[in-house]
Order: sequence, then structure tokens, then C-alpha cells
Amino acid sequence: MSSIFTKIINKEEKAYIVWQDSDVIVFLPKGHFINKGHLLVVPKVEVDYIFDLDDNIYHKLWSIAKKLSKPLKELTNAKRVGVAVEGFSVAHVHIHLTPLYNQGELDPNRSVSWSEEERKLFVNRLKKELSKG
Amino acid sequence: MSSIFTKIINKEEKAYIVWQDSDVIVFLPKGHFINKGHLLVVPKVEVDYIFDLDDNIYHKLWSIAKKLSKPLKELTNAKRVGVAVEGFSVAHVHIHLTPLYNQGELDPNRSVSWSEEERKLFVNRLKKELSKG
Repeated sequence: MSSIFTKIINKEEKAYIVWQDSDVIVFLPKGHFINKGHLLVVPKVEVDYIFDLDDNIYHKLWSIAKKLSKPLKELTNAKRVGVAVEGFSVAHVHIHLTPLYNQGELDPNRSVSWSEEERKLFVNRLKKELSKG
Repeated sequence: MSSIFTKIINKEEKAYIVWQDSDVIVFLPKGHFINKGHLLVVPKVEVDYIFDLDDNIYHKLWSIAKKLSKPLKELTNAKRVGVAVEGFSVAHVHIHLTPLYNQGELDPNRSVSWSEEERKLFVNRLKKELSKG
């Protein structure tokens, strides 16, 4: 059975996709946001545990996270972009990349509301920034 | 003024050091543990924000995190080793690497007790595993 992320990759499931190439895809979580601007950086290969990834894909994920952090921080006026990898909810590697404003926010139990309309606007702005290189 | 991590690097401040080379040092937090086995992976260069690191050091940190994850998971019987980078408490990059047993544990507000005696034993065991290559 495919993970929900593989379904997104295969276009069998919708998501707000921010960026992708042959190895990596970046999209918004389906409905749980630590803060507005929360992104998931996901390898296209369906591997459960981040430290089981081969070194190339592992480092590519971290490169993409770094690349995204700048426009993400700017667009959200965050103090920092935080990183978390927990991995109990979906058995397919995902790096949480999220704007942070204060200590203690990077909590998997934290959730803010973020409307569809706002998400759509945000993704369009972020894609525009990324297309500038 | 040096960060507390620079003081640890310069041996002006004590810490349970697990591993180090010329660029990276790994030690136990001073007194706040998400779970027993919680480690900090820290660049020796004093930079505040992880995404400001140059690519070499940035990727080296993630390599060390991967290298440590295996013995850390084995020694603690964790289901996974989790990753978090928040960065509000100390203005010197640090990757939190911590054993996880259940969803929701990777919470910066979570804290378990871990005695000095247990920490000392744990660090010795981990160093022994790492020395095996």
C-alpha cells in the first residue's frame, strides 16, 4: 500500500505543492500546521525512516530545506525557520520546515488554523520567490 | 561574549562530550532532556542560525547526525531517533538528536530526568560504539 505522500507524488491525492524535481517534493501538510507556512520536504522514494535514506537523497533533502528556508522566512516574517523530523504519523520520510516566532513553538502537538484561501496565496507567492532562483 | 557552546568547545565549561573533530562537537545538553539519550550536534564555528552555515559545515552536521543515529537508537531501544532545530535558547547552532518512543515526544517543552550517573554510563557506552566505527 502506498503512503499518502506517494499518492501525492503520483497525483492520486491533492496537495499544495511548492516545489519538486525527480528526487524531492515539497508540499503543505494536509491539515495540521505548527504555524502558517509549515512545509514538508519529502523524498519521492518511499522510505520510512530518515536515517535509512541513502546519503545522496538524505543530503539533497537538507539542501532543499536550506534553499527553501530563505524565502519562507522572508514571506512569513519569522524569526527563524525551524526543523523537525519525528515520523510516527506517516511511514514516509518528511522534514517539517516551519516558521517560528518564539521558543516552544516547534511542538508536534501545536496546531494553528490556516485557511485554504491563505494557503493558496502563500504557495503562489513562495513559488514565485523560488522561481527567481 | 562567547556562547556557552563555545565555552564547552574551549574547555572553559564542562559537558559530557560524545564525539568531536575539527569542525563538529557532540555533547549532552546541560539539563533539559526530551528523553534519555538526547544529544546536541554543534558546529565549532559560532553561528547563530543553522541556515546561515556554509554548505560544507551544514552538510557535515547532518552527516554526523546520521552517523550517531544508529548507535543512539540501538543503545536506547528507541523506535526512532528524532531531529529538531529551534534555536531560541542559545545563539549557536545546535541540532537536537533524541531517541523517540511515541508520537508527540519531540516537544521542546518536554523534559525527563536523567541522573549524572546514568549520563556518564551512557556517554561511555556510546563512545565505545562509535570507536568501533
